Amino acid sequence: MKSIMSKMMVLRMENKKEFTAYELMKIVDGELCGDSEKKITGVSSVENPVKNTIVFAENEEYLKKAEKLNADLVITNKNFDAELDLLKVNNPRLAYAKISTLFSDKPFPEEGKASNAAIADNVKMGRNVFIGENAVISDNVILEDGVKIGAGVYIGQNVRIGENSIIYPNSVIENDSILKDKVIIHSGSIIGADGFGYVQDGEKQQKIAQNGSVLIESKVEIGANTTIDRGTNKATFIGKGTKIDNLVQIGHNVEIGENCLIVAQVGIAGSVKIGDNVTIAGQAGVVDHTSIAKDSIIAAKSLVTKDLKSGEFYSGNPAQKHNQELRKEAAVRKTPKLLKKVKKLEKEINKIKKEMDN
Amino acid sequence: MKSIMSKMMVLRMENKKEFTAYELMKIVDGELCGDSEKKITGVSSVENPVKNTIVFAENEEYLKKAEKLNADLVITNKNFDAELDLLKVNNPRLAYAKISTLFSDKPFPEEGKASNAAIADNVKMGRNVFIGENAVISDNVILEDGVKIGAGVYIGQNVRIGENSIIYPNSVIENDSILKDKVIIHSGSIIGADGFGYVQDGEKQQKIAQNGSVLIESKVEIGANTTIDRGTNKATFIGKGTKIDNLVQIGHNVEIGENCLIVAQVGIAGSVKIGDNVTIAGQAGVVDHTSIAKDSIIAAKSLVTKDLKSGEFYSGNPAQKHNQELRKEAAVRKTPKLLKKVKKLEKEINKIKKEMDN
Amino acid sequence: MKSIMSKMMVLRMENKKEFTAYELMKIVDGELCGDSEKKITGVSSVENPVKNTIVFAENEEYLKKAEKLNADLVITNKNFDAELDLLKVNNPRLAYAKISTLFSDKPFPEEGKASNAAIADNVKMGRNVFIGENAVISDNVILEDGVKIGAGVYIGQNVRIGENSIIYPNSVIENDSILKDKVIIHSGSIIGADGFGYVQDGEKQQKIAQNGSVLIESKVEIGANTTIDRGTNKATFIGKGTKIDNLVQIGHNVEIGENCLIVAQVGIAGSVKIGDNVTIAGQAGVVDHTSIAKDSIIAAKSLVTKDLKSGEFYSGNPAQKHNQELRKEAAVRKTPKLLKKVKKLEKEINKIKKEMDN
Repeated sequence: MKSIMSKMMVLRMENKKEFTAYELMKIVDGELCGDSEKKITGVSSVENPVKNTIVFAENEEYLKKAEKLNADLVITNKNFDAELDLLKVNNPRLAYAKISTLFSDKPFPEEGKASNAAIADNVKMGRNVFIGENAVISDNVILEDGVKIGAGVYIGQNVRIGENSIIYPNSVIENDSILKDKVIIHSGSIIGADGFGYVQDGEKQQKIAQNGSVLIESKVEIGANTTIDRGTNKATFIGKGTKIDNLVQIGHNVEIGENCLIVAQVGIAGSVKIGDNVTIAGQAGVVDHTSIAKDSIIAAKSLVTKDLKSGEFYSGNPAQKHNQELRKEAAVRKTPKLLKKVKKLEKEINKIKKEMDN
Repeated sequence: MKSIMSKMMVLRMENKKEFTAYELMKIVDGELCGDSEKKITGVSSVENPVKNTIVFAENEEYLKKAEKLNADLVITNKNFDAELDLLKVNNPRLAYAKISTLFSDKPFPEEGKASNAAIADNVKMGRNVFIGENAVISDNVILEDGVKIGAGVYIGQNVRIGENSIIYPNSVIENDSILKDKVIIHSGSIIGADGFGYVQDGEKQQKIAQNGSVLIESKVEIGANTTIDRGTNKATFIGKGTKIDNLVQIGHNVEIGENCLIVAQVGIAGSVKIGDNVTIAGQAGVVDHTSIAKDSIIAAKSLVTKDLKSGEFYSGNPAQKHNQELRKEAAVRKTPKLLKKVKKLEKEINKIKKEMDN
Repeated sequence: MKSIMSKMMVLRMENKKEFTAYELMKIVDGELCGDSEKKITGVSSVENPVKNTIVFAENEEYLKKAEKLNADLVITNKNFDAELDLLKVNNPRLAYAKISTLFSDKPFPEEGKASNAAIADNVKMGRNVFIGENAVISDNVILEDGVKIGAGVYIGQNVRIGENSIIYPNSVIENDSILKDKVIIHSGSIIGADGFGYVQDGEKQQKIAQNGSVLIESKVEIGANTTIDRGTNKATFIGKGTKIDNLVQIGHNVEIGENCLIVAQVGIAGSVKIGDNVTIAGQAGVVDHTSIAKDSIIAAKSLVTKDLKSGEFYSGNPAQKHNQELRKEAAVRKTPKLLKKVKKLEKEINKIKKEMDN
């Protein structure tokens, strides 16, 4: 324990990064207006700029705030100007994201195995692997170069984890799962639990064995306490670069494409297919065996109940094209008035009929 | 560690099951058309049949796929036929489920206690109990014959776990919980945390102590990262054979009947009563102190706000009989047109009134 | 292990509390009708009163039940009467809550460090700290007097936990989080995982580093398997006395006021601001960058999509004032009838027009 802990402290010192404004300009390919030798040691919020840090002003309102609070250096749009040192770029949000990672503490030491980690004899490990306290690495596991395993993580048999992937504390990666390179799994997530599969047998439920696995492609990031079930006979699949938030449920046999964004508490039922670049906003649900074609956006709290075409924005329960949903919603809001109108029409017609009878 | 791990390997070898087509026929009480001596070593997907495995063809379309891909043996309906070895049964899905479990790897060794498990002195244990790495078994716990406790599991004081129950890694079973026989708890689930009970005391919230427990009947299966709260003064109760999916919330004092299916991300608030054979689809919610009578089905994303009668299909927010909800939904979709119609009627009536005035 | 376990047993004996009816009367400032020397050793349910316990009768119906079941002592309203020993108070629910906590078992021993806990050398600890089996306490952590850390908990670097706070088993408190006094975190919750922040970079998603932290004020209670993300550059903030249920998602940079109630499976997206005394019922969602002013109530399953004013009851998707939502819902339920009415009107008008033409 002691050796790992002191190693951690040394690394935190080494992590303490410092860049000149000029160096940051080079990294994001921007244009610098101000002192190119100014030392920058971190990122802070434009609402509370810290000395020697860079802040991000998305619009002119935020830029004025930065001016008022005398920020040391501001990433902003090429068209904006202010009485401050500015780092002007075409895409300030992207430049800010890149710079923010420069100052981010590495969450684990470069290397080391906690003495109380339980590592099976036949585990294969690359260089620069870190394994935290009480982690369990089962039989036949392969951990490639640079893998970091947090404290209390359980890795089941035959799991393979690719280069530089990070598994945060108390997560569970069940047997036979495959994670490619640079995957991040946050704390408490469960990868590879049994899918929810039963057949009615009289009044009882007969379990269908879940003999498949989970395959997670490179650069996928998965939030905290999320669950991704193993396939029934094949692998549940998460495509390259897809990002999944906290408390998300991904059912068995689901296939998700590349570069998707799946926001917190979304539920994707079994055997759903999702194309590339799909965004599913928070608390939305997708019914089993449906598909969502690439480049679609699903609004928060929607329920997808049938196959959806590519490149559209969908919302509602059941989800339909957002325009239609908006029209429906607008009409519904007019229904109380409509009721009154129709009542009035009925009266008028009765009056007319009476008059005509006379 | 070493001894447990090598025991694991041996068991995996012993688990490697092989059946003849004839033996499988006997097990599911079917009719075999083809080579009765054919060796079958597993189950695979009809979309990708593996050599020496049995696949499942639910309908004729799938059967054609199996034919095209030359599957070795196909479970299918008595009425279907194909140029393949067929195992014909009355209920192919159920037969498939039964056969799938034959080939399923046992998730834990038959027996053994990891040397780093923390087991209190007065724990009572039956035969063939397995306790994984870093598991904590507290004071007065009873683990009956065949219980398997995964790595990193925490079992609180006075817990009793029945024969052949399985607790997957990193779950928590809090003090005084009782689990009967053949219960399965998947990874990361929390059984017996405090219910959410407070009383307003001026501006502050006064906690109501949650002194009850959780009672889980036999053959219940609970998914990953699900939470079942302890009762306030009695036991939160899950009936025999009920299956609960991932990320489900079951509040304090809830009573759930037998053979229910509760799908992922469902939330059941405190003191709800649910009858036998109820199905609640994904992301549905049930408001506190309501009841759902037996044999009901609740559609995905519904919100149950009042007591529901038995044997019906309910949907919507608030949930009502599905027929009514469909009628409402159909009418709502016609509202934009209706608005136009009423506008037209108004004009016509005005015209009529004008003409009549003349 | 042995020493901690036997200490646990002794403490459970010491915890076995007994009060006279008179003592309870004094504690809740009530009025006693009955035997003041009666010994009370616990709380039980009015539906199943246990010998020598006190039960709670909210209304006269429950009081009759208590009478029928011959309860030993009943907390009830000043205006009620029965042939039983009664403890009459102004607010029976509040009195019951206070008494229930008197008989609640303390969930952890007063003191002790499990020999297999991994505690960094420079951790600072107050008096009466308990650290459970396999807990990991990282570098620079401060645990104040009376802190209890459950088994398998991971506490990251630089975390500070205030007096008498309790962290239940297998939770994760990530680096730099600050918890004030009397905070309770239930099992499996993850405090301080990265927020969900990315910028589109062509087809790929560029991560925004999440360098902030989490600050939880005193007397906050957080349920099981809940996730609270760290801020991007500042602290995600939970105000004093706020209670959060199970499986709740709190996004990065969220600020929640004092004495709020956030019920199970609620999702609060990034940068939301919530005032004091707000109640958000189960499965509701709040869209990012919106605010909810103090004293508001949000109904179950609502979706808050814009800033909401104080002191109102909101419901629906999108959430609006509950009155409006009810009017909308009532009107919508009348739409099927409305369709028929308008059809009839159309016919009548056509008839009138025809007659007029003649």
